Amino acid sequence: MTSWHPKNVGILALDIYFPPTCVLQEALEVHDGVSKGKYTVGLGQDCMAFCSEVEDVISMSLTVVTSLLEKYKIDPTQIGRLEVGSETVIDKSKSIKTFLMQIFEFGFPVSYAPYTNSHKEQKYGNTDIEGVDSTNACYGGTAALFNCVNWVESASWDGRYGLVVCTDSAVYAEGPARPTGGAAAVAMLIGPDAPIAFESKLRGSHMSHAYDFYKPNLASEYPVVDGKLSQTCYLMALDSCYKYFCQKFEKLEGRQFSMLDVDYFVFHSPYNKLVQKSFARLFFNDFLRNASSVDEIAKEKLAPYSTLSDVESYQSRDLEKEGKRVIMFSYGSGLTATMFSLQLQEGHRPFSLSNIVKVMDVPGKLKLRHEFPPEKFVDIMKLMEHRYGAKDFVTSKDSSLLSPGTCYLTEVDSMFRRFYAKKENTSNAATCENGAS
Amino acid sequence: MTSWHPKNVGILALDIYFPPTCVLQEALEVHDGVSKGKYTVGLGQDCMAFCSEVEDVISMSLTVVTSLLEKYKIDPTQIGRLEVGSETVIDKSKSIKTFLMQIFEFGFPVSYAPYTNSHKEQKYGNTDIEGVDSTNACYGGTAALFNCVNWVESASWDGRYGLVVCTDSAVYAEGPARPTGGAAAVAMLIGPDAPIAFESKLRGSHMSHAYDFYKPNLASEYPVVDGKLSQTCYLMALDSCYKYFCQKFEKLEGRQFSMLDVDYFVFHSPYNKLVQKSFARLFFNDFLRNASSVDEIAKEKLAPYSTLSDVESYQSRDLEKEGKRVIMFSYGSGLTATMFSLQLQEGHRPFSLSNIVKVMDVPGKLKLRHEFPPEKFVDIMKLMEHRYGAKDFVTSKDSSLLSPGTCYLTEVDSMFRRFYAKKENTSNAATCENGAS
Repeated sequence: MTSWHPKNVGILALDIYFPPTCVLQEALEVHDGVSKGKYTVGLGQDCMAFCSEVEDVISMSLTVVTSLLEKYKIDPTQIGRLEVGSETVIDKSKSIKTFLMQIFEFGFPVSYAPYTNSHKEQKYGNTDIEGVDSTNACYGGTAALFNCVNWVESASWDGRYGLVVCTDSAVYAEGPARPTGGAAAVAMLIGPDAPIAFESKLRGSHMSHAYDFYKPNLASEYPVVDGKLSQTCYLMALDSCYKYFCQKFEKLEGRQFSMLDVDYFVFHSPYNKLVQKSFARLFFNDFLRNASSVDEIAKEKLAPYSTLSDVESYQSRDLEKEGKRVIMFSYGSGLTATMFSLQLQEGHRPFSLSNIVKVMDVPGKLKLRHEFPPEKFVDIMKLMEHRYGAKDFVTSKDSSLLSPGTCYLTEVDSMFRRFYAKKENTSNAATCENGAS
Repeated sequence: MTSWHPKNVGILALDIYFPPTCVLQEALEVHDGVSKGKYTVGLGQDCMAFCSEVEDVISMSLTVVTSLLEKYKIDPTQIGRLEVGSETVIDKSKSIKTFLMQIFEFGFPVSYAPYTNSHKEQKYGNTDIEGVDSTNACYGGTAALFNCVNWVESASWDGRYGLVVCTDSAVYAEGPARPTGGAAAVAMLIGPDAPIAFESKLRGSHMSHAYDFYKPNLASEYPVVDGKLSQTCYLMALDSCYKYFCQKFEKLEGRQFSMLDVDYFVFHSPYNKLVQKSFARLFFNDFLRNASSVDEIAKEKLAPYSTLSDVESYQSRDLEKEGKRVIMFSYGSGLTATMFSLQLQEGHRPFSLSNIVKVMDVPGKLKLRHEFPPEKFVDIMKLMEHRYGAKDFVTSKDSSLLSPGTCYLTEVDSMFRRFYAKKENTSNAATCENGAS
């Protein structure tokens, strides 16, 4: 079977952004008057990022996209598709993707108001970019990623890169769900010959009608959550996806699938404890299927590493040398879930695993975070309750905690139009007018 | 270049549903106290469908999907992807797609509450269906359609059909935009060897950041609209898409593109007059490009038909016999727009153009509509303003105007969970409990 499909389509480059504002879960336990360890041990949580009044899913997306393009030296005209997955609704009609178009048409921050000035101001003028927003709770980003990979593999691919943005600001009303929040944006550059490539035939989905977590209260940013039901739905979806996944593998490869065939598992994490539970659950599934056991995995997979010293094991470059399979499990309440498979190869700079790790610099970004006392965090949550869906206000424009290159919200005008600025490397932040005023 | 891409991927089957409730634009002119002809001549509008209190985008989607599966005899297990495009947000997290999963897992109406009873009740048990909701104003349906076609053309296609649902209930506050509303749902079955096939390489998009129409007021179903700006954005996007489209055609075919290469143009219709304006606008573009002129089109395209009598021309089956190119222009405020090309072939039953026309039966469905006096329409709009985002109410459950097979809303409980029933062929409507209670 000959093919002109582009090969090894997947993630060429990655960048991540999360707010510098965070709260320690240990401190939150004390503040909330719950038993010690409830959030840290019970849920397995450590420290929670949140958006202050100058950040939201749009600003985080602007930040991470401009950062990725800059760090990997991608010209905005090289992008042919851009799509966003988010569960945070700021506007019920206008997609987050359209805010990002400013980068590709004018460069961000834009220096004038579109549709009122001459089009001579277009810095890049790239408006021929397909894709919109994908929505279903936490699964939207996965849907956007699949759509973008499919585009590259489809007849409509025009040879340019795809770009996927996953972003969310997850906040909960005071109560047991609050410590499971978080905030971040991830940008992924999509194309052929990727160091993180899809094994597209290995994929199992489970989608069903459920009310485990949903947002029917339109005026509020907070969801309605049935925590117990949501955990049941998550694990039920995990079992079902794994069943479909194994069936497809076995049909394709003609032999039984087991966890032995996998190097790494990555699970959607509402909170860390559920990830640990999910990993154990797959062992249980293998046990029920008479597949591999924990002992076999321990022996076969870890034996080659048993003679390494600690330091040697940290420095082992095996991951970069040999192809490794990563199984991902994505879950969005409501519910939609998919288990899918990625193959890791070192690749070539700038699209190499080691360069991606370097660019993302997660440890460096974590170090720059500022821990807020719970009282301050709660005050900000209260302010944000009023700001959500509001108009006619200016923010403090305080970008002192933000790293250079970070985009932030400056104003929402009387027509609900949102204005963003970018913190420049100098102390002066450039302001911009990007409304259609 | 050999290929194992499935060929002629596109729309195999279609069905449409719109509510039987409508209001005459002529009567609305009188009621609104505007000058005679403002809506009918000025906007080119005739009669507007709207949802009564027992219908919404979810019920219309349930109706059109069950209808399509039944009329084309498609087993629910044959669907491998399902996605929805809508600009009406009922829940900000849970996708409309997840409501439709009831059809594929249990059959609709479902006879029990999922996750509380045994899974033995699963009639079809097909939960392995990819896809979520795509959102950007009126463009969401087009995005969903592209995603589904790309899936069939991608390496992850599993050989099953895709299904796309486009649905919207467009309502406006009292004022000049109100007569441009409407309500409907369309379902499209996607696969290879389609009578309505994509020319995937012929596609031009224009996406940009604009505030012409948006929904930032989260608690209200009504948008914020700048009608004048929106028309400018629409026509600007049309010009830009046509420019990109022509460039791609010319690169591919090595000759100039003109309207002579097209048999039919279909434009997104906020109101009919803008469609007429758009068609003229493309002529103007061709004129500026020194391409074909109106005269040439008239001569070359219409000459063969000049000797036909009226009756003969109506009965001419040329459309079914020869391949015809249809250019579509899709626009969603905010803004996202794409011009794309379809090739029509008669195909083979049940996936043939003539069968599609028969199944859709638009004239028959139009005849079944009930014209409501404007006063009654306004009363219903007012009721719906209160119902939007509300909980803890039951509807009138009055399905007397609905055709058999129509799904409708019966209740929203204290947890915002929505319950739907289906009007059976007998006078008794089956009720169902589909919440996760």
